[in-house]
Amino acid sequence: MAPPMTPAKVAVLGASGYSGIELLRILLRHPGAELVCLTSRQNAGRSLADVFPRFSNTGPASSLPFINPDPDAIAASGADTAFLALPHGVAHEFAAALLARGLRVIDLSADFRLDDPAVYEEFYDHPHPAPQLLSEAVYGLPEINADAIRNSRLIAAPGCYPTSMLLPLLPLLRANLIQPQSICVFSMSGVSGAGRKEALPLLFCECNESVRAYSVPKHRHLSEVEQELSKAAGQSVRITFTPHLIPVTAGICTTIYCAPAPGTSIESIGTTLAAAYAHAPFVRLRGQNRCPDTKDVVRSNFIDIGWALDERTGRLILMSAEDNLWKGAASQAVQCFNLLKQFPEEAGLHSI
Amino acid sequence: MAPPMTPAKVAVLGASGYSGIELLRILLRHPGAELVCLTSRQNAGRSLADVFPRFSNTGPASSLPFINPDPDAIAASGADTAFLALPHGVAHEFAAALLARGLRVIDLSADFRLDDPAVYEEFYDHPHPAPQLLSEAVYGLPEINADAIRNSRLIAAPGCYPTSMLLPLLPLLRANLIQPQSICVFSMSGVSGAGRKEALPLLFCECNESVRAYSVPKHRHLSEVEQELSKAAGQSVRITFTPHLIPVTAGICTTIYCAPAPGTSIESIGTTLAAAYAHAPFVRLRGQNRCPDTKDVVRSNFIDIGWALDERTGRLILMSAEDNLWKGAASQAVQCFNLLKQFPEEAGLHSI
Amino acid sequence: MAPPMTPAKVAVLGASGYSGIELLRILLRHPGAELVCLTSRQNAGRSLADVFPRFSNTGPASSLPFINPDPDAIAASGADTAFLALPHGVAHEFAAALLARGLRVIDLSADFRLDDPAVYEEFYDHPHPAPQLLSEAVYGLPEINADAIRNSRLIAAPGCYPTSMLLPLLPLLRANLIQPQSICVFSMSGVSGAGRKEALPLLFCECNESVRAYSVPKHRHLSEVEQELSKAAGQSVRITFTPHLIPVTAGICTTIYCAPAPGTSIESIGTTLAAAYAHAPFVRLRGQNRCPDTKDVVRSNFIDIGWALDERTGRLILMSAEDNLWKGAASQAVQCFNLLKQFPEEAGLHSI
Amino acid sequence: MAPPMTPAKVAVLGASGYSGIELLRILLRHPGAELVCLTSRQNAGRSLADVFPRFSNTGPASSLPFINPDPDAIAASGADTAFLALPHGVAHEFAAALLARGLRVIDLSADFRLDDPAVYEEFYDHPHPAPQLLSEAVYGLPEINADAIRNSRLIAAPGCYPTSMLLPLLPLLRANLIQPQSICVFSMSGVSGAGRKEALPLLFCECNESVRAYSVPKHRHLSEVEQELSKAAGQSVRITFTPHLIPVTAGICTTIYCAPAPGTSIESIGTTLAAAYAHAPFVRLRGQNRCPDTKDVVRSNFIDIGWALDERTGRLILMSAEDNLWKGAASQAVQCFNLLKQFPEEAGLHSI
Repeated sequence: MAPPMTPAKVAVLGASGYSGIELLRILLRHPGAELVCLTSRQNAGRSLADVFPRFSNTGPASSLPFINPDPDAIAASGADTAFLALPHGVAHEFAAALLARGLRVIDLSADFRLDDPAVYEEFYDHPHPAPQLLSEAVYGLPEINADAIRNSRLIAAPGCYPTSMLLPLLPLLRANLIQPQSICVFSMSGVSGAGRKEALPLLFCECNESVRAYSVPKHRHLSEVEQELSKAAGQSVRITFTPHLIPVTAGICTTIYCAPAPGTSIESIGTTLAAAYAHAPFVRLRGQNRCPDTKDVVRSNFIDIGWALDERTGRLILMSAEDNLWKGAASQAVQCFNLLKQFPEEAGLHSI
Repeated sequence: MAPPMTPAKVAVLGASGYSGIELLRILLRHPGAELVCLTSRQNAGRSLADVFPRFSNTGPASSLPFINPDPDAIAASGADTAFLALPHGVAHEFAAALLARGLRVIDLSADFRLDDPAVYEEFYDHPHPAPQLLSEAVYGLPEINADAIRNSRLIAAPGCYPTSMLLPLLPLLRANLIQPQSICVFSMSGVSGAGRKEALPLLFCECNESVRAYSVPKHRHLSEVEQELSKAAGQSVRITFTPHLIPVTAGICTTIYCAPAPGTSIESIGTTLAAAYAHAPFVRLRGQNRCPDTKDVVRSNFIDIGWALDERTGRLILMSAEDNLWKGAASQAVQCFNLLKQFPEEAGLHSI
Repeated sequence: MAPPMTPAKVAVLGASGYSGIELLRILLRHPGAELVCLTSRQNAGRSLADVFPRFSNTGPASSLPFINPDPDAIAASGADTAFLALPHGVAHEFAAALLARGLRVIDLSADFRLDDPAVYEEFYDHPHPAPQLLSEAVYGLPEINADAIRNSRLIAAPGCYPTSMLLPLLPLLRANLIQPQSICVFSMSGVSGAGRKEALPLLFCECNESVRAYSVPKHRHLSEVEQELSKAAGQSVRITFTPHLIPVTAGICTTIYCAPAPGTSIESIGTTLAAAYAHAPFVRLRGQNRCPDTKDVVRSNFIDIGWALDERTGRLILMSAEDNLWKGAASQAVQCFNLLKQFPEEAGLHSI
Repeated sequence: MAPPMTPAKVAVLGASGYSGIELLRILLRHPGAELVCLTSRQNAGRSLADVFPRFSNTGPASSLPFINPDPDAIAASGADTAFLALPHGVAHEFAAALLARGLRVIDLSADFRLDDPAVYEEFYDHPHPAPQLLSEAVYGLPEINADAIRNSRLIAAPGCYPTSMLLPLLPLLRANLIQPQSICVFSMSGVSGAGRKEALPLLFCECNESVRAYSVPKHRHLSEVEQELSKAAGQSVRITFTPHLIPVTAGICTTIYCAPAPGTSIESIGTTLAAAYAHAPFVRLRGQNRCPDTKDVVRSNFIDIGWALDERTGRLILMSAEDNLWKGAASQAVQCFNLLKQFPEEAGLHSI
């Protein structure tokens, strides 16, 4: 039996967005976390239970008040780790200020995911505001980067779509089993991926009984995906990717087509994935011709992966399912937190 | 103003399935159709309004009884045209029997969509039971085959997925604007596409908050799609296709990637589609970088099409949205009926 | 066969809200209506098809531009009838201005539904801004008020919840079959009832997989319901009513409990309703112990009604289902328009 | 800190139904439970993870095989407690057989909820098959019956609807604050309440965008509700109750109208509920004029309760929200298990 963990004091910034809410759901029950600070501009002054009745009667943190996101106040809460569930473009300021105050930072936004400020500028349309931190930040994909995460003070948790593509693709690219320039990706995401904001296209009646592509042809997440794929392939990789909005609250389902490298067998796909994830507690390989279903992973940190060979065209089909707010955001950030704190990787993440 | 139509007497076989219900919804209001016969084994003896309260008080057909599907009884009803909304493998028998009794047949099943009995056997796992009819049947895609449909006595209405792929692709293949072997298709369908049958995977609680691929890697609809694409390309075409089940009742959203032929501009994609569909009242070209949404086409005979060029990889992206039960089944069958009867192509299909 | 109608020129104000969209859906296909003017502050300058792709390729009105809601401009369009699909509290100004310019007005808001300005002030928290019009306006429930509607120049179309209660209750109250003070109502409405506005509680992720009561204990619609019930009962009636928000786009399902008057049999409930609605084409009596389902009435002008006697407690149960945006708003307004214009009551309302 | 629990060995019969699945979700993570036996006729021979991929990689129980429900085999598994998630009318046989083999039984069916075999026969249309067990069984509502549950060997977990009514009503009836014969109940339930069975009305396309009452006017759950209300009131109580099916997977929302006893203030309603549930960790009182939302309780053992006074009619409105499969079934059964095993009442039930 594992020794009891000494809880770390944690702050959650942007705690009233959809990723923030799921972070709270997890951290409130995490044996190694003590929530000491919540921020939300909009709800400052109100208690957690008042804003979100679902969290009432769940322990002392229920009565924690939201405060305005002020770095000094956050540091004064005693938090040694801060989760940033803030919008892209807002997180970096708080990251810098909190690092300067000695906290470790796990950022769920896109602000620190890229290695190259020029790529950031290409995809986000303005120069990166803190390039020195960009070079320090670690890409928080635990299955790939565990050691770096353990020793970092600034972790950039991956995007929801990127996670769903990278975990099936990286081991195959590394093993040279697929042709890097052949990758075509289609993804479907639940509406929570668009955030908790007052916007007409996100209304129930606009999304219900509706499905459509969006951000065609150049979604911002391409930048971090291609960065990581390129590292794995040892060459610059460009992919085509189309996200679609579907009427579910949570879940991403991704289907990838690519060309196997000459001589690659479908069996080698399975064995390579199995070897890569033999010790990864949250990657579940469903097997050949098995199609992962988002309902099997919702509210969990699991990603389920299946694969198939289209013998008629020779193309390889990779499929994954994850919860966009969990493995694609909040629970993956907590998985990073567990590594950072030397906790068991699964601590607080047993939900199914 | 058009002269009034002389209504044709029509029968609907399999009228209690999801395609059958939508056929009834359309035909009950069609100025050129008089419903005289409905069949349903399961509901034989009960009236239309009794089985489907939504159809009560909608005119004389409300009280029409369902009968068992007997060819003599159907012929005795006076119907001169029969719509077959029967399962694959069941329709062909009735088609043969009704043709022998002098009726015209519009079949919504897959039984007569293929030209080649060998392809049928490959995809449907048994020899075609009526190969002589196979050669007579016309593929009922009105935008492509209007003349043949007008003069046929056996029309095979296309499948739902095939319609969503063929309409964007055929004009481009014919104009040699895309590379035929580069086509990758990804579709999402509402649950009604799986039929109205008591099956565990179709329960509300199994489909809601769930999305997954299925029929990987070889869906049966590939056979008719590749047949029609090959004709347009003038060479044998093989594609990769993955359908996904999403929690909506109706709607198919299809996204296609392909490689443009050398020298093809994105403008030529738009102009070629515009020329092909200049006189097609139900094809709506949404334009470049516009993403069709199923909620704009549900309960209509429209198919909406958008396109984009992924400049970073050079791939062309085609997108379409249709109602799987309407343009993908019932209303397309009625569009064929209009051609067959020399009615205005839009008769009875004005719903939006 | 009915003689062809001479189309009336109509304007729709507030055409980009949910009721407005459904009005357009109906009027675009109405043989007696020619859309000549659309207003929307937010979309002024854009065409109908541009704002709502679903309406592209649906005829000349597709290219009609939205204009700002200016009474002179509306009158200049040649419209002789205006539908107001504006928010409560906004409609009355335009009603006055358009009446002054000689148009007839069918108002879908709550501004003119009450007879008594004092009741208006009690429920809407401010004095009625145009009490003289209040006394002129006709409550537009065609099954009850057809003659008055035919001769009015200002029609107040009933609210969605009120329609669902009044049609089952009014004939029974008039016949003294139920005890007026015993009425308890419970309703469930789709999210479209809350309007097309950017509000956090209306987001997909807030409504999906959620159900809850709201506006407890005094919903504004009580005022018009009690007004009409009181007239029927010949005494002041007070009821208890709780609305609930459920995750569907459209539909209201209402269940009512009340005490039968002494000596009332369950048979007399059925015969009284049947007599009251013998000539009402849109009221469908489903019968005793039959439960109406919203999916049978969505996108139609029908209201379905069932009833039952709870023998164990002696209470009568009345149940109704309607589309909140159709019979509860837009199509009911068109039914009033048909009466006003001496068109067949069902003109343009054949959808099922 | 609580001492570690010694896990009890538990069996789950009918583990592949919706209540069974949620039981597994809870028990797999319960520190005081070791799953040793699962039964499912339909899935006998297959492992848990194979039948339900969501449970793969969740620990040793993932590979547990389903077996046929044989009492000797169940006893041989070493289980000392059996949860019966079997259909009504099937559970009693296994209960008798397992009790005879020395196991304790927590039954989620309706087989043992009634005290009086005559009432059972009235509502279930056949004589009770094991009346001697009926008299021994304890009604497993922990907030009311904790002591009896601790000392029982046969616990009948309450129905989903009854839980949602009894918890708001019982303290008020006991305190004579409401008039017992005035109670009118309306409930809405997610589709999972109807069970995981292949039935046409439970298909996604039949339930989606649909809402309707059912089982009008005499739902079977009335029997146990009235039994418990009568005990609390000290007189025979009859209520009117109408359940409605709404398109969500999980959740029950109940709204109750009743007449306060003369002299009852709305404040006394709040204070009486607060006193009754001061030590009930899973009852959350939302307060006056606050409307509970099912999305705040889904996948938790909480029931949220609100109340309001309709001053215009004098009626009291009580509102509750629970997860029909959790507090209404599986987690409530586990709460009983905790009492039975002298575990902390919240053990294994911390999910939010």
